[in-house]
Amino acid sequence: MNIDNLLKQVAFIKEIDKLKYIQRRTRLFNSDRHENDAEHSWHLAMMALVLTEHADKPIDVLKVVKMVLIHDLVEIDAGDVFIYDTVKNHTNTDEERLAAQRIFGLLPKEQAEEYIAIWEEFEEGNTDDAKFAKAMDRFEPLLQNTSNNGGTWAEFNVTYDKVYDKKKVIREGSTSIWKYAEGLINESVEKGILKK
Amino acid sequence: MNIDNLLKQVAFIKEIDKLKYIQRRTRLFNSDRHENDAEHSWHLAMMALVLTEHADKPIDVLKVVKMVLIHDLVEIDAGDVFIYDTVKNHTNTDEERLAAQRIFGLLPKEQAEEYIAIWEEFEEGNTDDAKFAKAMDRFEPLLQNTSNNGGTWAEFNVTYDKVYDKKKVIREGSTSIWKYAEGLINESVEKGILKK
Repeated sequence: MNIDNLLKQVAFIKEIDKLKYIQRRTRLFNSDRHENDAEHSWHLAMMALVLTEHADKPIDVLKVVKMVLIHDLVEIDAGDVFIYDTVKNHTNTDEERLAAQRIFGLLPKEQAEEYIAIWEEFEEGNTDDAKFAKAMDRFEPLLQNTSNNGGTWAEFNVTYDKVYDKKKVIREGSTSIWKYAEGLINESVEKGILKK
Repeated sequence: MNIDNLLKQVAFIKEIDKLKYIQRRTRLFNSDRHENDAEHSWHLAMMALVLTEHADKPIDVLKVVKMVLIHDLVEIDAGDVFIYDTVKNHTNTDEERLAAQRIFGLLPKEQAEEYIAIWEEFEEGNTDDAKFAKAMDRFEPLLQNTSNNGGTWAEFNVTYDKVYDKKKVIREGSTSIWKYAEGLINESVEKGILKK
């Protein structure tokens, strides 16, 4: 038994509870209640598990699940950044790097290194695992917005071009999910819930 | 591409959003805000990942993570049952079995069978994977209640004997986490936040 490790892990487990307070712009399905980051992370993990067969390349499912479960933890310090915010760039800011060091740094050293590496792999988005994880992260709000009459698109005047540009990341992980997603986007334009 | 599978999986992904509305009795750490089942499931998955080294027997981490992510989905139909409720027995009621059939039944057949089997394995609690998953499920509210001056113990007059009886399930999955948990329980009695 390694009590020193256990105490560090418990400190981490308590700290990450704060993810439950971080509100996203998107709302739950057919709802006006905002989603929080912990709920979102749980949902992405479920999606990664049930949609694995649609990955274009073989993926390490456990690693992808780890990625999506932890991908937003840095927001405990850095806050949620709206994907269509043109001022604040979401990708791996210094603030987020510091947050990763502090939060994962609560864990025993080797574990901290493992999770920081997984988080960076996700952020960089170059590996097959990261591409599939990112596809999940883009696909969930698409499903939410289409179930909410346009959701954040309508609320923040986000147009087709911007949505298409952000969502096409799905194609990097799964051509079949992208094909379905593209259909949803076009359908949204036809329905008038997404403006061209 | 199997579009038939994808459509079924998307229906499942939408349906399980309802887990975010199911309130537990326990509250977030150092908080009076109730936790919902999706947040709880996310937290257990994180715990299973970072505490793996404390499992007494080798475990299949991916399977344990699947277990804790899905273990409460049946509550979408059957509702949350308070662990100290002596009238309603939580363990695998007919209502929960029907819920499992309906909810996992939205998935393609093979996947549905896989997840129903994983859920049943968790509920029965006989395998090493299920024992570790159950240990996580008992450990999280212990950490929450001790951070909340007794939390649900104080709120619902739950005494030491009942707490000890429920929490000793942790020992089946991890003697080291149990040793730590037992310390927390005894400390709670000393602090007067858990009555003997």
